[in-house]
Amino acid sequence: MMKNFRKTIHVKSTGIRPTFHMITDQVQNIVNESSISEGLCVVYSHHTTCSVMVQECSFDKTYTGLEYLQQDLCNILENIIPTCRVEGQYLHPGPQLTEFSLQHGEDKPRTLNTDAHLRSSLIGRSESIVIAQGKLDLGSFGHIYFIDFDQTCARERTIQVQIIGE
Amino acid sequence: MMKNFRKTIHVKSTGIRPTFHMITDQVQNIVNESSISEGLCVVYSHHTTCSVMVQECSFDKTYTGLEYLQQDLCNILENIIPTCRVEGQYLHPGPQLTEFSLQHGEDKPRTLNTDAHLRSSLIGRSESIVIAQGKLDLGSFGHIYFIDFDQTCARERTIQVQIIGE
Amino acid sequence: MMKNFRKTIHVKSTGIRPTFHMITDQVQNIVNESSISEGLCVVYSHHTTCSVMVQECSFDKTYTGLEYLQQDLCNILENIIPTCRVEGQYLHPGPQLTEFSLQHGEDKPRTLNTDAHLRSSLIGRSESIVIAQGKLDLGSFGHIYFIDFDQTCARERTIQVQIIGE
Repeated sequence: MMKNFRKTIHVKSTGIRPTFHMITDQVQNIVNESSISEGLCVVYSHHTTCSVMVQECSFDKTYTGLEYLQQDLCNILENIIPTCRVEGQYLHPGPQLTEFSLQHGEDKPRTLNTDAHLRSSLIGRSESIVIAQGKLDLGSFGHIYFIDFDQTCARERTIQVQIIGE
Repeated sequence: MMKNFRKTIHVKSTGIRPTFHMITDQVQNIVNESSISEGLCVVYSHHTTCSVMVQECSFDKTYTGLEYLQQDLCNILENIIPTCRVEGQYLHPGPQLTEFSLQHGEDKPRTLNTDAHLRSSLIGRSESIVIAQGKLDLGSFGHIYFIDFDQTCARERTIQVQIIGE
Repeated sequence: MMKNFRKTIHVKSTGIRPTFHMITDQVQNIVNESSISEGLCVVYSHHTTCSVMVQECSFDKTYTGLEYLQQDLCNILENIIPTCRVEGQYLHPGPQLTEFSLQHGEDKPRTLNTDAHLRSSLIGRSESIVIAQGKLDLGSFGHIYFIDFDQTCARERTIQVQIIGE
């Protein structure tokens, strides 16, 4: 019988650089808990500066702790959507957005995280993953990463795991 | 009990520049109408020159009416996939495609909209959004945008909203 | 009544250049077989160097056999994520990954396919397509392509077609 199941994962980003959270095991545990063995698992970022990506774990790490493939991705993104370092580099955020943010519980002036919004839109907000025989179909190398592209501050982030199947 | 529900949204693009349609309220209304309170909402572009994106509304607008973050996105895209201004800039469209288009009800010679096709593929054709307690999980800032990247003419566009859940 | 249906498609890539497999008919046949006439079809790449894309068939072909729009996409990607031609161009793959690969049944030293991993993440691993009245909603021009971005060798690839609806 077809079912619907959802759970939330929370992670803590570091700021300073994009943070990659490997959440494969947590998502597979939610699949197990759902008792859904055939269907679809959508891993979804609640945030507009974050992405979900399925990619190879590349083991070897750079000086700052990113896996090699993650650093390669950051380097590519730096070329096409440079990290915001000076005012005027991007139009966003403007004065009206800053005021809206202050009114909605952001506790400090709006941060310069435009690059994170743009990177999130380019890489995508969610991944839809096939569940076959109770397992996420990721192959031998595939892992699920939640990427927080916001480099401006450390904070807690919310990931939704939505499962539909039987 | 699990259900399936679909409705179509129609919007009118302006041409001349990429058009961003904020469709959050229309999609939420379709969710309400579906009586599905837990599940998945897929917002899907029927067209290969358009995208669906979930992003922050950035309020402040440029001279031509784009929100700041939308203009920042267009500027980035202009760097990596330049607007087609002269023949030969892209290979597409070729003579066979032009003939096929004329045979299938396009009422004028094929337009030079290659950039729109490529941008659509980069940003993505659909968004999958979690529905929790009857609400689209978009956060305080998130909105759903339908983007028509085709700058060559004004026309009506079709967006599918497919909901699965219970 | 809501149902879940899945089938697998296998294709053979050529290597040397990105391979585009038009799989529209095969996916529509699976939809037909599922007897699901209203719902969602997710076409999913099992591999982290491949993508699924819905785009226009552009008929006219280049010397090497790519459709014009496919070649335009490859040219754009070559600018932002250049094909890996020399060691050191990307950090990945490092020594630990190479060892892991050898231990998991890869029969030769790890290939330099970093560009394929990055392009796969940019274009996306899956497409969610609406099914209406038993047909994939692709319009007159839309086709489903499975793209193998790995240019380093010819091999068989696996595509999952997951259908949910009624």
